[in-house]
Amino acid sequence: MSNFGVSELRLVNPYEVAFREAKSAVKAQHVLAQAREYPAIGEAVADCGLVVGTTSIGHRALEHPMRRLEYGGRLIAKKLASTPVALLFGSEKFGLANEDMSHCHWLMRIPTRDEHSSMNLGQAVAVCLYEIHRMPAAAKLKPEPKRPARAEDLERITARLEEVLELSGYVHERVEGSTRMKIRRLIRRMELNGHDAEVWLGMLRQILWKLGRGPG
Amino acid sequence: MSNFGVSELRLVNPYEVAFREAKSAVKAQHVLAQAREYPAIGEAVADCGLVVGTTSIGHRALEHPMRRLEYGGRLIAKKLASTPVALLFGSEKFGLANEDMSHCHWLMRIPTRDEHSSMNLGQAVAVCLYEIHRMPAAAKLKPEPKRPARAEDLERITARLEEVLELSGYVHERVEGSTRMKIRRLIRRMELNGHDAEVWLGMLRQILWKLGRGPG
Repeated sequence: MSNFGVSELRLVNPYEVAFREAKSAVKAQHVLAQAREYPAIGEAVADCGLVVGTTSIGHRALEHPMRRLEYGGRLIAKKLASTPVALLFGSEKFGLANEDMSHCHWLMRIPTRDEHSSMNLGQAVAVCLYEIHRMPAAAKLKPEPKRPARAEDLERITARLEEVLELSGYVHERVEGSTRMKIRRLIRRMELNGHDAEVWLGMLRQILWKLGRGPG
Repeated sequence: MSNFGVSELRLVNPYEVAFREAKSAVKAQHVLAQAREYPAIGEAVADCGLVVGTTSIGHRALEHPMRRLEYGGRLIAKKLASTPVALLFGSEKFGLANEDMSHCHWLMRIPTRDEHSSMNLGQAVAVCLYEIHRMPAAAKLKPEPKRPARAEDLERITARLEEVLELSGYVHERVEGSTRMKIRRLIRRMELNGHDAEVWLGMLRQILWKLGRGPG
């Protein structure tokens, strides 16, 4: 919850021992410290404009609309702009009861594989909050590129590598045009950034120096 | 892992006691049973065509390209069509060391809030595998709609509700046209499915019967 900026934990009729002895992760103490207990679901969700129950695929026959998290998460994110939304999770062992679900506007399921649809509670919460919190647009954004190597640097690397391959006997002394093109393309495919290009130039310079002097 | 159909767990130099005594969830026994131990990362990822390290935002200054999970997950999903991909997680306490990261093609971070970026290991794994496994297209799909109520059913509901409102004194005995339209629109906004429409008809029938007979 804390990782994804969700702070309001409401517990309905929790097992007292577990609740009292619960320890929170570093930086997440505020979630447990502010957690509130309610005797029944109706009271816990009273101020919410949308109540969504989470369940595994097994309950599909129920009367409630069932939405996949990818779609339900978008609906919830939109709704949050205008009203508090309650995301209901059942107990680790039994999930939500029919009575619990009757308080929900709709149900949501995480797209697990059919053969193993029941999830660990903490993991299910993390996955749901991630989906609501993430930015779909970010899936299309490339990260800020590093300053790419300039063509002249790539050409210098190409030339030095040619020399190295020549001196080391990998290619004939006079490198042929086709070989040069192969090397040029090889270097371009590396998509070097400016810093790495300098590192490569330095390495090749060193190799050249060594090759030029010979083993002696 | 089992929830999202990932079965190959590789452990590098695990703490023996924890590994020996680890218990898997119901239906996930195969993951632990088939887990393999390796003395070093290089050997564990040897057959993988892509190695991605996971880390919190704190390490951003490192030389590796850092990608958000939304974007990195798409790259991994594509790559999986042609090669095994290793997703590297560090220990709960220390995360990945620089030496570990040097085996990675790039790094990936889960978009947590900056103030609390370090995640529980199991939750981080679940969130990453969900993102790789989910279908972005599903976010745009509406769930299969239930058979919607037919217009004639809605009209019957409208008429009965009119009668109920009339008998109960909510509106004048002869319902005016504008009021009828308001009621008609009210019923349409409910977007009833066929089953719920019948339930409503039954309820209204019962209310009418009671109202018609009066309190006696």
